[in-house]
Amino acid sequence: MMNNNLTIPPGLNSFDSAQHFRHKGAVFWLTGLSGSGKSTLAIALQSALTQRGYSSYVLDGDKLRLGLNANLGFSPQDRTENIRRVGEVAALFSDAGLICITAFISPYQADRARARNTCAQAFHEIHIAASVATCEARDTKGLYKKARAGELLEFTGVSAPYEAPVAPEFRIDTDQESVEVSVMRLLSYAVEHLAV
Amino acid sequence: MMNNNLTIPPGLNSFDSAQHFRHKGAVFWLTGLSGSGKSTLAIALQSALTQRGYSSYVLDGDKLRLGLNANLGFSPQDRTENIRRVGEVAALFSDAGLICITAFISPYQADRARARNTCAQAFHEIHIAASVATCEARDTKGLYKKARAGELLEFTGVSAPYEAPVAPEFRIDTDQESVEVSVMRLLSYAVEHLAV
Repeated sequence: MMNNNLTIPPGLNSFDSAQHFRHKGAVFWLTGLSGSGKSTLAIALQSALTQRGYSSYVLDGDKLRLGLNANLGFSPQDRTENIRRVGEVAALFSDAGLICITAFISPYQADRARARNTCAQAFHEIHIAASVATCEARDTKGLYKKARAGELLEFTGVSAPYEAPVAPEFRIDTDQESVEVSVMRLLSYAVEHLAV
Repeated sequence: MMNNNLTIPPGLNSFDSAQHFRHKGAVFWLTGLSGSGKSTLAIALQSALTQRGYSSYVLDGDKLRLGLNANLGFSPQDRTENIRRVGEVAALFSDAGLICITAFISPYQADRARARNTCAQAFHEIHIAASVATCEARDTKGLYKKARAGELLEFTGVSAPYEAPVAPEFRIDTDQESVEVSVMRLLSYAVEHLAV
């Protein structure tokens, strides 16, 4: 018997992710200097969202550099391609219905604008703001010390520019606000903007 | 006031996706000829899973060719890179806790083996089997006609090989089985293998 019927049975068709997850999909694009607190906030926000029934995922350099972006280096073109792929993957997660929280320095306005274009209204640019002085005082990964010693070239905030967001949807000053307060403010923002 | 404390507050730490979604994350990697029924089955399976409370996402060429893989052509290297990226993105979705259903011809064993390596036990190779004759009789997209006319080069099943899975986790013969039956069998498989 040959089965030439590949139509989808009734009732097994469109997928309404907002109905399934009970909130809109979104990209929360955290941008800021190294040491500004992007990853810390991303992870804390995911946990807080999860506790309240939201479905989310954190994308950061650790998850991509060894996988999807393993074939990229640190040339200007490769850095741009790195952020382009992050934007496209985040858009897929948003399309799937999740809140995708990305944690990348993403210093260039043009790269972030392109990421925004992949998912339009679902994109929320969140500036994790802290002065270079604050980030350098923290120097959680010891990178500022290396950059000052000339061991890291084109290091954002030291030897390469950071183009701060002009009109981000949200801004957090991590040198003035605790992680707890920041997360609660972001949660309120999510509840308000992602309601179905 | 300078805030140098970026530690994650207690209780806001690790994310247990299996606990959140109430099932394991997974990649259901559908492989088969053009016209074998991969996309139809992927969409039908997603709907059936959703109705039963599972969280899933379908990755197919339509979603990737204009986005993440827009900078890839159809050279052998680009085809391999295409499937590599699909595998890496699917692994991220699985890591997020979703059941990622991919629908790509993915004709080469080596490419599929690499995709499997990105997520190990979470990877389920599902052979959507149908003879070239059946697929050509369907010719849902008119591609076989073009391939026979020489308008499409290196077309899998006509002018390029399809390396069938040697030991797939699951096999569906779409020339012998209806979509409804196939989906129900895949659902049983999911329930059995993705229980927390």
